[in-house]
Amino acid sequence: MSTLDLTLDEIYTLANATMVANGCDEDNANALADIVTRAERDGSHSHGLFRVPGYVKALRSGKVNGKAKPTVIRKTPSVIQVDGGGCFAPLAQAVGLLALAEAANESGAAALSLVNIHHFAALWPETEYLADRGLVGIACTAYMPSVAPAGSKEKLFGTNPISFAWPRPGKSPICYDMATAAMAMGDVQIAARDGKTVPPGTGLDADGNETTDPAKIAKGVLLPFGGYKGSAIALMVELLAAGLTGERFSYEAAEHDNKDGGPPRGGEMVIALSPAVIAGEGWAEHAEEFVDRLAGLEGVRLPGARRHANRLDTGPRAINATLVETIRGLC
Amino acid sequence: MSTLDLTLDEIYTLANATMVANGCDEDNANALADIVTRAERDGSHSHGLFRVPGYVKALRSGKVNGKAKPTVIRKTPSVIQVDGGGCFAPLAQAVGLLALAEAANESGAAALSLVNIHHFAALWPETEYLADRGLVGIACTAYMPSVAPAGSKEKLFGTNPISFAWPRPGKSPICYDMATAAMAMGDVQIAARDGKTVPPGTGLDADGNETTDPAKIAKGVLLPFGGYKGSAIALMVELLAAGLTGERFSYEAAEHDNKDGGPPRGGEMVIALSPAVIAGEGWAEHAEEFVDRLAGLEGVRLPGARRHANRLDTGPRAINATLVETIRGLC
Repeated sequence: MSTLDLTLDEIYTLANATMVANGCDEDNANALADIVTRAERDGSHSHGLFRVPGYVKALRSGKVNGKAKPTVIRKTPSVIQVDGGGCFAPLAQAVGLLALAEAANESGAAALSLVNIHHFAALWPETEYLADRGLVGIACTAYMPSVAPAGSKEKLFGTNPISFAWPRPGKSPICYDMATAAMAMGDVQIAARDGKTVPPGTGLDADGNETTDPAKIAKGVLLPFGGYKGSAIALMVELLAAGLTGERFSYEAAEHDNKDGGPPRGGEMVIALSPAVIAGEGWAEHAEEFVDRLAGLEGVRLPGARRHANRLDTGPRAINATLVETIRGLC
Repeated sequence: MSTLDLTLDEIYTLANATMVANGCDEDNANALADIVTRAERDGSHSHGLFRVPGYVKALRSGKVNGKAKPTVIRKTPSVIQVDGGGCFAPLAQAVGLLALAEAANESGAAALSLVNIHHFAALWPETEYLADRGLVGIACTAYMPSVAPAGSKEKLFGTNPISFAWPRPGKSPICYDMATAAMAMGDVQIAARDGKTVPPGTGLDADGNETTDPAKIAKGVLLPFGGYKGSAIALMVELLAAGLTGERFSYEAAEHDNKDGGPPRGGEMVIALSPAVIAGEGWAEHAEEFVDRLAGLEGVRLPGARRHANRLDTGPRAINATLVETIRGLC
């Protein structure tokens, strides 16, 4: 694969210019460029520039409003709702997370529901934002169906990612962000291309039979990670991201989507909890002793550590040259 | 196995009398008898009378205070803490959940931390209590280490159960309650007794090698369900139940426990969220359409449905006769 070295500033500028050229106002373009740049900075290439063509599709089809102005409603001192007005999620998050962190630091427990948004990025930016402010963060969102509930052969759940972050004052938080699907469909397709097998439990073929052949799964459905238990977590995500927000379930998102290749409209739920309020003084030191034990185990790496290590590198990033060319062609 | 038929009243009376005979006051004995009876009613035998000898051990050794009076502190309008004073969890829950439900119905999002308690029961009574009041419930607790984080060979996590309930006004909630361990150690021991193998990923032998031989796992460690992703959920439970409550992590619980065979001191975190506040009007009908789709899939049973079906049976329950004899001998 031929690559081009782009500095983080160049990545930001490229993403920003592409958004502006496709109808975003400054606020929307900045929020998008920021989320794309942070993904590339952390080495999450699949959520970086790789997503820009999808963002553009959704702008060009008119599904997403690049000039939307999200509105914040504080329903109670502990519940905030942001109506994105049809924007991409990052701008809605930028205003919502600020209010959520204030609420949680004050009341100890708070919830943010994001509706009328289009989420196409990772979830760790949300939970890390909270952890950086001393809060436990939990975030989840649904998508369009690709995962069959355990026991069934029909897709109903999205890949339904969930992210959790634990604050460590003065240090990078513990933070994970994972699909509740056993494997991303993109990775299944790569395994098929490379002629590899995938682990049992990854997915079913088009007839609903278990298989380890990724080419067959690509024509069938994914399964949740971890069998029935993982399916229960995927169900929780679906109910929190759609049932609790009042936004579209995965199947509704698919039914309403215009199939432009960009992200469908959906909801996101973010929960923030304050250990300073709930546990009180000494909470950080107490947890740090546990984290030391965990990190000290042979074979264990703290969730998020690889991204945080990548983040320290301020140098240029090697970006797929074809992708850069494609994006430049969209400006 | 020889069994005795006991009515639910007889189960309650037996549990209650045993608690009183071993030093519980009326409030503590009633709360314990209630939780035991509800477990038997729902067919959760492993959390019913089966636990009574363990409860008695903890009372007799003085580890648990059968006359404890839990105190409720409302730290903020959204954060409640109950100090159990060394009681078994059910009495602390009885006072805490009432306050939590009030807080969540008012503020939309609230958290209850239970500290200085000894949890030896299922978690669905907590989350179903909330769901019966129109709230989403999430509960988790840690225990003593028996599970090795994914990638490691040493136990650090407890079986770390998590329960989630979704409210369905006029119907039984969707509710699951599952260990984040791949399998309960009790089930591993049963498989060993019966000469069966267990699925890959269940546990490691004493040398830290993967094995499907349950007899070897019984001398080694359990693994989290679902590999790295399940391990991430187990980690979240540990951090919520201990880090966020300020109570003991699994390893601390083990270090401080007197090894009487009863439940160690630990913490529990319960989160309640109000769809009526967060999503607003129409939330229940919206979610019900999704639940109908889920329940309509061939091969899918709604989480909790089996327990709820058992609950409809008001007749006597067949209880292990030896267990009944043992418990009668403890009075």
